[in-house]
Amino acid sequence: KKIYKIAVIRGDGIGPEIIDEAIKVLDSVCAKEDFELRYEDYLMGGVAYDFKGTPLPDETIEGCLKSDAVLFGAIGGEKWDTLPREFRPETGLLKLRKALGLFANLRPTAIFDELLDASTLKPEVLKGVDLLVVRELIGGIYFGEPRGNDGFKGYNTMVYTKPEIERIAHMAFESAMKRRKMVCSVDKANVLEVSQLWRDTVIEVSKAYPEVTLSHMYVDNAAMQLVRNPRQFDVILTGNIFGDILSDEASMISGSIGLLPSASIGGKIGLFEPIHGSAPDIAGQGIANPLATILSASMMLRFALGETKAADRIELAIKKVLHDGYRTKDLANYGAKEVCSTTQIGSIIADYT
Amino acid sequence: KKIYKIAVIRGDGIGPEIIDEAIKVLDSVCAKEDFELRYEDYLMGGVAYDFKGTPLPDETIEGCLKSDAVLFGAIGGEKWDTLPREFRPETGLLKLRKALGLFANLRPTAIFDELLDASTLKPEVLKGVDLLVVRELIGGIYFGEPRGNDGFKGYNTMVYTKPEIERIAHMAFESAMKRRKMVCSVDKANVLEVSQLWRDTVIEVSKAYPEVTLSHMYVDNAAMQLVRNPRQFDVILTGNIFGDILSDEASMISGSIGLLPSASIGGKIGLFEPIHGSAPDIAGQGIANPLATILSASMMLRFALGETKAADRIELAIKKVLHDGYRTKDLANYGAKEVCSTTQIGSIIADYT
Ligand SMILES: CC(C)[C@H](C(=O)O)[C@@H](O)C(=O)O
Ligand SMILES: CC(C)[C@H](C(=O)O)[C@@H](O)C(=O)O
Repeated sequence: KKIYKIAVIRGDGIGPEIIDEAIKVLDSVCAKEDFELRYEDYLMGGVAYDFKGTPLPDETIEGCLKSDAVLFGAIGGEKWDTLPREFRPETGLLKLRKALGLFANLRPTAIFDELLDASTLKPEVLKGVDLLVVRELIGGIYFGEPRGNDGFKGYNTMVYTKPEIERIAHMAFESAMKRRKMVCSVDKANVLEVSQLWRDTVIEVSKAYPEVTLSHMYVDNAAMQLVRNPRQFDVILTGNIFGDILSDEASMISGSIGLLPSASIGGKIGLFEPIHGSAPDIAGQGIANPLATILSASMMLRFALGETKAADRIELAIKKVLHDGYRTKDLANYGAKEVCSTTQIGSIIADYT
Repeated sequence: KKIYKIAVIRGDGIGPEIIDEAIKVLDSVCAKEDFELRYEDYLMGGVAYDFKGTPLPDETIEGCLKSDAVLFGAIGGEKWDTLPREFRPETGLLKLRKALGLFANLRPTAIFDELLDASTLKPEVLKGVDLLVVRELIGGIYFGEPRGNDGFKGYNTMVYTKPEIERIAHMAFESAMKRRKMVCSVDKANVLEVSQLWRDTVIEVSKAYPEVTLSHMYVDNAAMQLVRNPRQFDVILTGNIFGDILSDEASMISGSIGLLPSASIGGKIGLFEPIHGSAPDIAGQGIANPLATILSASMMLRFALGETKAADRIELAIKKVLHDGYRTKDLANYGAKEVCSTTQIGSIIADYT
């Protein structure tokens, strides 16, 4: 019987509650597919700062590095927003991404037919949308040097080298090969030199994937096109900050923001997390929607552990739960037959797997 | 009788056609309000490169500087996209903004009830949206040094100094005082030092406007909130690249992208232009929608020349034209009683003023 080690980072706000449900569901599929998951908890974010004085203790990095995958909830909250940058929850997450070499963030935006109405976009615009944002995650303006703020002048550097662009471009083209074989690379090459290098390099890499159709779009236009006609996209390939903005926009368009998982990969082990935040305002009330985290757990099974059948079980269970009308409070207005608490819906999904 | 000098930059693609209609309408209101406009044509963009070897000839800058306002169509086209950066149409526009000191770009997004259906967003989400993006236009990553691309490493610098942030913040707060008295400042202060300085400075400036409510939003969240609930915004204050992305997103959400004007101000003279691009694919066919340019001309009358009554005449005429069911081809599916060519709709608006 296979045994995997999972590093679990609950984090702040609703993080702990939604992770509990993901583990509940994971345990139920393990039993059915005959493998075992051993969980180790690690601290990151505000809670790590509170207990250890740093948002990313060394033992968290070490713990992740000796695991097979990392399952992560969410971090952050107003409470820590005024701390010096080095102590903020976000800094912990950025450092962990870097330490684990997670250069690729994959964010699929699929539409669940049951939740079509939850979007502010018209259903006829949404129907059939199925896109994947491939975001570079450990370069660009997030990590570029020099950077600073002396109270008179603030500055950051958006920088990419060719090898950094090449590896994320390969990731995007490989993803496209398993999908509809289209890559749209998003940049601001009409203004930025770093984008010109980005575009030139993506074109070079594309030569290795003759079956994939490559297009280019300026980031301002991409922000428009996601609203105008999101169906036109298959894989969107872009840098760190543009990807941050566009993937959040895409997720909101889907109307399914409480259901969207993400995978950060490229290093030795992958990290899997919902795309939504820590929602401190509803933490501890039992109303958080754990579906995005449960789907992240499914991505973990599929991409990090190769446990495809178990991953399929979870995805099917979620489809069935939606179809049968179980909803958490955030989706109570969209086809709910029964409004469930966080733990209730977790249990139903576990049963359905 | 007052005489104003207007520098006219037709530019590329549909630029010349839409400017012609704006001038037609301006001439008709001049006659009615008893002032005179004297137009001088100047070259910028691809056409300037073709004729003069540079996208921004010196005489264009000089001509603009001795005018009372600049009316601008649009620039750019695939034809020039592969030129070295210094020769590209966009570089001309960026240099002109800098040369004229146009640090503030104001982009109002209002919804025309007649065109509610043209948006991909649901009408109930759109109804009543009335927001203004105040974008810093001659700083940030567009102009920051150092910048470069040696084929292995590409880099740009996002930089702001306190005085640069102060002046655009004042502009936003002053705009808000004439509106619903809310400013939402958008940044990425959880990651970027330059955004931290931005946020700190905006907070300082806000003290001079006790009646205005200030909030802060991360740019990824702002991209979501524009889709989720655009009505929550009054004035959005942000830097150059975030403003580029968010104002385009906001304009597409409105469904009225062919109707949205913009004003670039802050220097000695203002520049007024539609927010849409040069649409080379439809140039010369007589189907371009000139309404955004005509509304830009109205903004010019109001903000640069103080000819409020003439500006009102244009806005009323446009409302009437929409109400009466005249539409250009792009809006043929949204309440058209008669589909008009570019020159036809220009003439009807001129008549209606
Ligand atoms: C929390 C923040 C630092 C982070 C980011 O900007 O990368 C988040 O927005 C995300 O997209 O994962
Ligand atoms: C053409 C381009 C350089 C320009 C910009 O990015 O500022 C345009 O997108 C705009 O918003 O006016």
